[in-house]
Amino acid sequence: MIKIILNGARGKMGKTIAELVKSQEDVEIIAGVDVVGERGDFPIYDSIFKIDEKADVIVDFSNPQAFDNLLSYALARRIPLVMGTTGLVESHRLKLQDAAKTIPVFYSQNMSLGVFLMVMLSQKLARVLSDFDVEIVERHHNQKIDAPSGTAIMLAEAIQEVRSGAEFVYSRVDKRKKRDKNEIGIHSIRAGNLVGEHRVIFGGEDETIEISHLVTSRKVLAAGALKAAKFIVEKAPGYYTMKDLVDSLSC
Amino acid sequence: MIKIILNGARGKMGKTIAELVKSQEDVEIIAGVDVVGERGDFPIYDSIFKIDEKADVIVDFSNPQAFDNLLSYALARRIPLVMGTTGLVESHRLKLQDAAKTIPVFYSQNMSLGVFLMVMLSQKLARVLSDFDVEIVERHHNQKIDAPSGTAIMLAEAIQEVRSGAEFVYSRVDKRKKRDKNEIGIHSIRAGNLVGEHRVIFGGEDETIEISHLVTSRKVLAAGALKAAKFIVEKAPGYYTMKDLVDSLSC
Amino acid sequence: MIKIILNGARGKMGKTIAELVKSQEDVEIIAGVDVVGERGDFPIYDSIFKIDEKADVIVDFSNPQAFDNLLSYALARRIPLVMGTTGLVESHRLKLQDAAKTIPVFYSQNMSLGVFLMVMLSQKLARVLSDFDVEIVERHHNQKIDAPSGTAIMLAEAIQEVRSGAEFVYSRVDKRKKRDKNEIGIHSIRAGNLVGEHRVIFGGEDETIEISHLVTSRKVLAAGALKAAKFIVEKAPGYYTMKDLVDSLSC
Amino acid sequence: MIKIILNGARGKMGKTIAELVKSQEDVEIIAGVDVVGERGDFPIYDSIFKIDEKADVIVDFSNPQAFDNLLSYALARRIPLVMGTTGLVESHRLKLQDAAKTIPVFYSQNMSLGVFLMVMLSQKLARVLSDFDVEIVERHHNQKIDAPSGTAIMLAEAIQEVRSGAEFVYSRVDKRKKRDKNEIGIHSIRAGNLVGEHRVIFGGEDETIEISHLVTSRKVLAAGALKAAKFIVEKAPGYYTMKDLVDSLSC
Repeated sequence: MIKIILNGARGKMGKTIAELVKSQEDVEIIAGVDVVGERGDFPIYDSIFKIDEKADVIVDFSNPQAFDNLLSYALARRIPLVMGTTGLVESHRLKLQDAAKTIPVFYSQNMSLGVFLMVMLSQKLARVLSDFDVEIVERHHNQKIDAPSGTAIMLAEAIQEVRSGAEFVYSRVDKRKKRDKNEIGIHSIRAGNLVGEHRVIFGGEDETIEISHLVTSRKVLAAGALKAAKFIVEKAPGYYTMKDLVDSLSC
Repeated sequence: MIKIILNGARGKMGKTIAELVKSQEDVEIIAGVDVVGERGDFPIYDSIFKIDEKADVIVDFSNPQAFDNLLSYALARRIPLVMGTTGLVESHRLKLQDAAKTIPVFYSQNMSLGVFLMVMLSQKLARVLSDFDVEIVERHHNQKIDAPSGTAIMLAEAIQEVRSGAEFVYSRVDKRKKRDKNEIGIHSIRAGNLVGEHRVIFGGEDETIEISHLVTSRKVLAAGALKAAKFIVEKAPGYYTMKDLVDSLSC
Repeated sequence: MIKIILNGARGKMGKTIAELVKSQEDVEIIAGVDVVGERGDFPIYDSIFKIDEKADVIVDFSNPQAFDNLLSYALARRIPLVMGTTGLVESHRLKLQDAAKTIPVFYSQNMSLGVFLMVMLSQKLARVLSDFDVEIVERHHNQKIDAPSGTAIMLAEAIQEVRSGAEFVYSRVDKRKKRDKNEIGIHSIRAGNLVGEHRVIFGGEDETIEISHLVTSRKVLAAGALKAAKFIVEKAPGYYTMKDLVDSLSC
Repeated sequence: MIKIILNGARGKMGKTIAELVKSQEDVEIIAGVDVVGERGDFPIYDSIFKIDEKADVIVDFSNPQAFDNLLSYALARRIPLVMGTTGLVESHRLKLQDAAKTIPVFYSQNMSLGVFLMVMLSQKLARVLSDFDVEIVERHHNQKIDAPSGTAIMLAEAIQEVRSGAEFVYSRVDKRKKRDKNEIGIHSIRAGNLVGEHRVIFGGEDETIEISHLVTSRKVLAAGALKAAKFIVEKAPGYYTMKDLVDSLSC
């Protein structure tokens, strides 16, 4: 049984992870960290330093302010760390890489295995099908404020890496000119309450290849984080990413 | 056997119609009109007035310059007329409506029955599902200069008719605000050499309805024009549109 | 404020309706009927006859055993009735039609407006595009036991009505023959935990039209039932169906 | 300029290749081989042994009967060989592998790069997303006799390789049981005249990944064969497949 400390236990992702853990047999949450705290299935502390029981791994979905305490705690006790918190900046990443010399650290901007695979396969296709036009269509609920989505940008940047000079195009209305070969069209659909969908279209002569990824619940990210936790729990110290997790699953 | 005069016999659409007629048993082209002319399956004249044989219907895919001769010829001989020429202006349409008091006239901006049905059904859905968000995605080949496509605009305008105050939105990048209820998003994908696809998305709470129309050859328009020709050949004088053709098929 | 009695308050659909009512301003549940009962947002009785307060409409998602009591109660008090219970047989329907002489009765096998619209539009397309091949693809979660889905059958039967002689085909493997014009292919995909998707494909010469309907939560059916309740609450006695509701929304 | 001998010049694929070569600047056909022969853009001989001019590569889309002459000719003159002929059996393949010690030989059952990539990526996804359900949907024109398509079988077998014990399921109607984890559903849609589409669906908890490949013209296969020809023309002797071509494009 893998013992988890859940940092950020009362946030939206924290609650989702706690819920998901209940249905899995090989993991348990021994303690959570968050502000105020009535007891649930496990004790929640307002400071990680109050946790005495030894955990096998820490899963973090808190916020950048909690970063330093978290890292100190994990380093002092040699506990592997899964970082799911978003909004980390360069300085955080340098500290993580330094910590990775001492403990296993898993970091990813997006904890969905499926999204990572789509990014990877899209890059592969963009490289091999070098004469195909690439367009990205993302769809999200009508309350989403930013456009395009972070994942659409991640996809576009991954494709740009293998197509130097590629340029992002967000609208073609009234341009009155043919598509340039180096365009990557990015289209943001907002409708209803759909959690999220991404689609990468590769259009060639007389053929089209598409990869799409549809998410119907945020639980997907929680599942990814737990997979990451199980992956690094017995690993040697090091900096691990989705790529390592996927490679481990491919063998 | 329905005898057709094909006005604009050497244009792209004229050739496609001539080809399609060969495979149909109840129609034949008795004469074509166009500039220069080596003989093919039927004689081609440089002036419609040189055609003596009585036709049952004229199918026109020429250009607005040929309009007046065409109309005079049809009116003098009481021949039903299918107008597929694009680029007609207000004055042409008034003349057509006047001619329709004497002969059957069929006019449509888009001769595809499928496209017309999609427009009609989208309007129906937009009216009934009044709280659903509507987004239009069109995809065409990378040589297309205009965006959005004429058909996408036709769709958006049909929806606007039943959703007063609806506003067309072509890009959401960097707006940093939630979708307004009265937006109709229109997205233009350009990739490869696909003839054309249109998709109307109705996104509601926990459900999505989509209608899509994919065209893989321009022959689709020729087929629509021939259906129109067979439809009006025995009709009373009047101004007929795709709506009449579809209604006749629904009975 | 429309006052609702919820018959079958503790079932899956009853709970979903109770939840949805909380977020709507013009409806409230004044009482529920179900077996055992701790009080929630409204009192729940083990017999509908124990409810004294006058309701504006009864929404029923119970079971056929509760049918007779329900009908007596509604008739005696002249309360409009929305029947969402499935599994009703011929004799129930006759009684409903008889009751409809006295009170407004709304009955539908599927309370989703979207599904009803898809059935209606598919029938329209099947009639007009009489030379197009029709195929139905439904996708549901991997726990679903029956195949094809009830809605797929509803779609296929609606199309059969306008295409006499149409035959349902569930597999083509190893048949080694061309598709017959009168086939309606029906394909049942089972994968993951997707609530449900239906897609009707109309394949013609060089063009394809598709209508699809994706559901990501069972709340959709609750929303339809509440729409029906608001629709019949002020109506004259009569037997109403989804068609009437849709027609009312189309004006 | 790469000089090509086209074996099987008058077949459907031969004609498509000849047409495509006209639009490419770095290849030319110096001679074709086929039965009867009026001259076109290049001379056509009824025997490959009548061709004197030295070619850089032979592209073959003939039939298994022509195999031995073709191989002798290529071996004697040390000309690289692209084999696109279908219907080869074990003995042919052994001879090809033996010839590959002397000349570069490129062989693939399907010359579409896109199809190969879809197979490869589907296998990758099936391996990594080991708890996702896999379903394959193929769609072809209504004249196609076999079902499922050869490519659908290729896809299913590639997935079976990484999911031992996987079982193909062609219909679920009236089975009245839940989906087994080891099923691979295969669905064959026949409608209209669409050249072909394949879609692999990976359905997981709250997410779905799909890869699809749409072909709108047979030219796609000709383009693949020409890419293969350019790929092996300067290679060392050896047996090359689509995998090598894709790997070369990935660098």
